[in-house]
Amino acid sequence: MLEVEIKAEVRIKEMEKKISDLGARFIKKELQEDTYFRHPCRDFKAEDEALRVRMVRGKYFLTYKGERQDPETKTRLEIETKVGGAILDILKVLGFSEVRKILKERDTYGWGRLKIYLDRVEGLGEFLEVEGKVWEDKEKIFGLLERLGIPGERLIRKSYLEMLEEG
Amino acid sequence: MLEVEIKAEVRIKEMEKKISDLGARFIKKELQEDTYFRHPCRDFKAEDEALRVRMVRGKYFLTYKGERQDPETKTRLEIETKVGGAILDILKVLGFSEVRKILKERDTYGWGRLKIYLDRVEGLGEFLEVEGKVWEDKEKIFGLLERLGIPGERLIRKSYLEMLEEG
Repeated sequence: MLEVEIKAEVRIKEMEKKISDLGARFIKKELQEDTYFRHPCRDFKAEDEALRVRMVRGKYFLTYKGERQDPETKTRLEIETKVGGAILDILKVLGFSEVRKILKERDTYGWGRLKIYLDRVEGLGEFLEVEGKVWEDKEKIFGLLERLGIPGERLIRKSYLEMLEEG
Repeated sequence: MLEVEIKAEVRIKEMEKKISDLGARFIKKELQEDTYFRHPCRDFKAEDEALRVRMVRGKYFLTYKGERQDPETKTRLEIETKVGGAILDILKVLGFSEVRKILKERDTYGWGRLKIYLDRVEGLGEFLEVEGKVWEDKEKIFGLLERLGIPGERLIRKSYLEMLEEG
């Protein structure tokens, strides 16, 4: 499963108006608690990989993210499955150690087959992410960015984890 | 979560009658497909650990088993969580490789707070397992074995995986 994705720092108030003007449909507001892990014997950072457990409304998801595949976007392989909370104990006994927790409030919108996220990330700021599921979505995503008035040079290829680790 | 457990090779037809005479209640019959994995950088066999994905009726469970804690039984720490089928892909990209698949038909009975399993294991034979969740169940389990006419010397501490790997 490919995750074709871009990210930019924005002012959410301003974006909400623009997104609404585009006719995007509001889907949901969620508080997401993400926990990122170190591999017991592989350098995820050097290999540009990530392993995350997301908790949202008492539900848990385990997600693997592969290396970024594109110089312009943060497109990467993503594999996700629903899990129970005991996954945290299983990861621990298997030698995966916690790198960091990231807390964010995410508003999700749909625009055609794209997802638009407005994220308030604790300790980091406000961001927009746009996500598609196939390479062909890349063009649509850049078209959307133009309509939102976000120039290409404002795009961020880094993950929230990397931004927080560097901050 | 502790798994206090014993196992013995039996004739299922004979055991069914004895279990029924005891008043144990039949709970379910399931076909279980278990896949066992190697850790990317730890010797599970040397450490007496195991990681398994069980598929049963299209549902998946991820289970970690710690080292055996008792010379008489196969009692060990067990952590389990429900997962989706994509866990197999996630384990693979994380470097966990498949050791073996084990197919068995399991009939589950309840007797007090103990579980009794009658297992037909492909390529291995017919077995009875009795499982409790706390150390105090050990005495109950040995009492049950006596009533089923299974002497202590017939107990097997090996897992199905070990038995199949050695066969």
